[in-house]
Amino acid sequence: MEVKKNPEQLRILENWMREQKPEELFGEEGKLIPELKELAPTGKRRMSANPHANGGVLRRALRLPDFSDYALKVERPGKIEAENVPPLGNFLRDVMKLNKNNFRLFGPDETTSNKLQAVYQASKKFWIAEYFPEDADGGELATDGRVVEMLSEHTMEGMLEGYLLTGRNGFFSSYEAFVHVIDSMFNQHAKWLSICNNLSWRQKVASLNLLITSTVWRQDHNGFTHQDPGFLDVVLNKSAAVTRIYLPPDANCLLSVADHCLRSENYINVIVSDKQLHLQYLDMDAAITHCTKGIGIWDWASNDQGSEPDLVMASAGDIPTQEALAATMLLRHEFPDIKIRFINVVDLFKLQPSTEHPHGLTESDFNSLFTCNKPIIFNFHGYPWLIHRLTYGRKNKTIHVRGYKEKGNINTPMELAINNEIDRYSLAIDGIDRVPRLQAIGGHAKEKFRNAQIACRAYGYKHGIDAPEISGWRWPL
Amino acid sequence: MEVKKNPEQLRILENWMREQKPEELFGEEGKLIPELKELAPTGKRRMSANPHANGGVLRRALRLPDFSDYALKVERPGKIEAENVPPLGNFLRDVMKLNKNNFRLFGPDETTSNKLQAVYQASKKFWIAEYFPEDADGGELATDGRVVEMLSEHTMEGMLEGYLLTGRNGFFSSYEAFVHVIDSMFNQHAKWLSICNNLSWRQKVASLNLLITSTVWRQDHNGFTHQDPGFLDVVLNKSAAVTRIYLPPDANCLLSVADHCLRSENYINVIVSDKQLHLQYLDMDAAITHCTKGIGIWDWASNDQGSEPDLVMASAGDIPTQEALAATMLLRHEFPDIKIRFINVVDLFKLQPSTEHPHGLTESDFNSLFTCNKPIIFNFHGYPWLIHRLTYGRKNKTIHVRGYKEKGNINTPMELAINNEIDRYSLAIDGIDRVPRLQAIGGHAKEKFRNAQIACRAYGYKHGIDAPEISGWRWPL
Repeated sequence: MEVKKNPEQLRILENWMREQKPEELFGEEGKLIPELKELAPTGKRRMSANPHANGGVLRRALRLPDFSDYALKVERPGKIEAENVPPLGNFLRDVMKLNKNNFRLFGPDETTSNKLQAVYQASKKFWIAEYFPEDADGGELATDGRVVEMLSEHTMEGMLEGYLLTGRNGFFSSYEAFVHVIDSMFNQHAKWLSICNNLSWRQKVASLNLLITSTVWRQDHNGFTHQDPGFLDVVLNKSAAVTRIYLPPDANCLLSVADHCLRSENYINVIVSDKQLHLQYLDMDAAITHCTKGIGIWDWASNDQGSEPDLVMASAGDIPTQEALAATMLLRHEFPDIKIRFINVVDLFKLQPSTEHPHGLTESDFNSLFTCNKPIIFNFHGYPWLIHRLTYGRKNKTIHVRGYKEKGNINTPMELAINNEIDRYSLAIDGIDRVPRLQAIGGHAKEKFRNAQIACRAYGYKHGIDAPEISGWRWPL
Repeated sequence: MEVKKNPEQLRILENWMREQKPEELFGEEGKLIPELKELAPTGKRRMSANPHANGGVLRRALRLPDFSDYALKVERPGKIEAENVPPLGNFLRDVMKLNKNNFRLFGPDETTSNKLQAVYQASKKFWIAEYFPEDADGGELATDGRVVEMLSEHTMEGMLEGYLLTGRNGFFSSYEAFVHVIDSMFNQHAKWLSICNNLSWRQKVASLNLLITSTVWRQDHNGFTHQDPGFLDVVLNKSAAVTRIYLPPDANCLLSVADHCLRSENYINVIVSDKQLHLQYLDMDAAITHCTKGIGIWDWASNDQGSEPDLVMASAGDIPTQEALAATMLLRHEFPDIKIRFINVVDLFKLQPSTEHPHGLTESDFNSLFTCNKPIIFNFHGYPWLIHRLTYGRKNKTIHVRGYKEKGNINTPMELAINNEIDRYSLAIDGIDRVPRLQAIGGHAKEKFRNAQIACRAYGYKHGIDAPEISGWRWPL
């Protein structure tokens, strides 16, 4: 910078530059001389056309089995529990079998912990160092393994990025709290993708698929350190053209979402789904319809058909959906004439206006789902602010959001839900506070719900687990 | 988990546990036998009382020179430019001189790039490996160096955490975009601190002080990859009891804020301040007053004294403050009777309600600063959503926020500002759109501002730098 102001510095710079003998390199008009210009590669050896640098040129679509073959049998909504991730593990196992040379699974040493271990039936963990006798007992190691593991989220993400950029396909799973380790790498990949969209020569690459599991609401043993759903806030800061966020509420929805993500290009797909036992809501046909829309009224959980609802109860995420459903039933039990509409969101960007995100609902679609003026209670998986951010600018200003508020410890699921006010009782109380008619008559019901919260805490404190009527709750209709 | 359901698994578990011979370890009542209980350490050797594990016990307050001795001379607001960080470097140099055994500076190989190199007058970079002849030329290495550098943000943050937890004091600087590398570590330290607040035996440790510099708005040469002000969004998700965010607008404010942070305990202090040449606004007395309040009306930049303003122009951050001031003058020039109040925010949490953050303004203080119903334009350093999040729930709902929108490239400062609509002309147009009276008469002025934007872009494209009337703009009064 000094050269702009200091003639002596400018003279030193000029002398140095003249030492490079520009008169030998450039012709009369200042153009590179032909002999040097010829050194630049041509055709496919140009950097932009070289498949080593433009991996999309090499990419072939994955051969995918029919994901609906891996469906859980769900006869009626909310009656059985199952782990959400293992069916996806079965699907990924067969994706790996069908794509032996261009599909890999990456993760920070958590493939089994995250319940994706079925993939080991197709291929083991890559390991070319020394083998010990104990490795035979569940080590799942092989020199040609296509599962790549190291307890280092950023190393794994970097390897996956390289794999995608060279024309292959992959899938990454991580504990939710620790996916923050790759925030900076996510940011840079999102920036890179959004620039690629403006480069006509840049062929599309497979999407970066991130499964975020072992989530905030089920850290019964790990506690506060493992409770951090904030990666989604980081994702939202990046371009809408390259970011997608999905919160499938059950196993069949997770399969449908994962299939969609594996087929997509040039996105970063973030899928949030816990690995523990959760209620199952949708059979595969219903799951496909729901996930294809990305957001929808659950007719079976609503009783406002043919009239305006008194209250819209909405949810995104597995545990928040369960609690919102239970709150709906508490209110319907206490106030038999109340009309509640139940909405579940899988594709989070549906909430944003269509002018801000390609997935966003139009104003009229949003208004016919959420109404223009009825109170909305939204029970969210992550930090509550995200929902306000997405729905800012929507006509209905009565949206009340519950989510994680950094109130955690080694808690039972119900204790943690109560601490952060996403539990059925807090939501039912919120409902009474927001439906004008109920404010006048709901005093006794609120009291009952508060008593129930105290009983839940007392049981959890004494037994270390939730009461059977809580952990065993099922949709009663 | 199987043991709860499977008697055979339970039997195996019981056999294994009986092999530990509990009858030899516990007495009749199930208590540990006295010989074993005696093995546990007592007094200062208990983990909680041991200074190795409870470093706050050892901590001594830093000896701090008077920060006002390092002030820049600022005779009138907005007349001179200076680099904001070097005076802080001088202050930290003397902090290091006065605290030879309990203060260190940490950073990812950017101490000089971040303009803190004055500290090398007090102590060099710690280096105990091989020395080469070229290290003598500006390497700033020494075996007893108290500056710790490695181009690895997370290693540096981890070392600083260990240093603080063992009772010492430190200061960390990082490029803004890459401080996301430590998101996960920040999260865990914030969780740790918020739990400490509930442990009576845990003595307070020095705050984790993070200077975030080389910021989004001055990446004239680095471009899009270096533009990411999203760390603040991560910080906001953590407990209000342990998080503090400051955006000092100039060099003297940065000194005042840094002094405050070095004296504080058990917080994570995030200071955002760019290292480039910026306009200087406040002399040291004014800076101390402004930073102590954390938010305030800049009387010299306002002309609504004694009346209601037509518009409240607010800013947080160096470049956004400059552009907001310039927009104020554009509007006052075009509409001589307009009344504009100018507010600058240093302590970001002042915007939050006092019920949510200990620094938050009360409702009446917020309303008397921002009014209840006059339009507010807020020009923000980071992603605009953060300001909506902080001011949600405030009475005045007319707040319009500008900030970074991921619209970046290798741009001149003015091009980048225009791309993200934080520039003086965009803000002036926003003002016309939001003051009802100006909507009717502002057509010509809007046209003039749009023309000026086009001229700025054309000049930047042609010359690679901003026009002298832009880069040389000074507060004209």
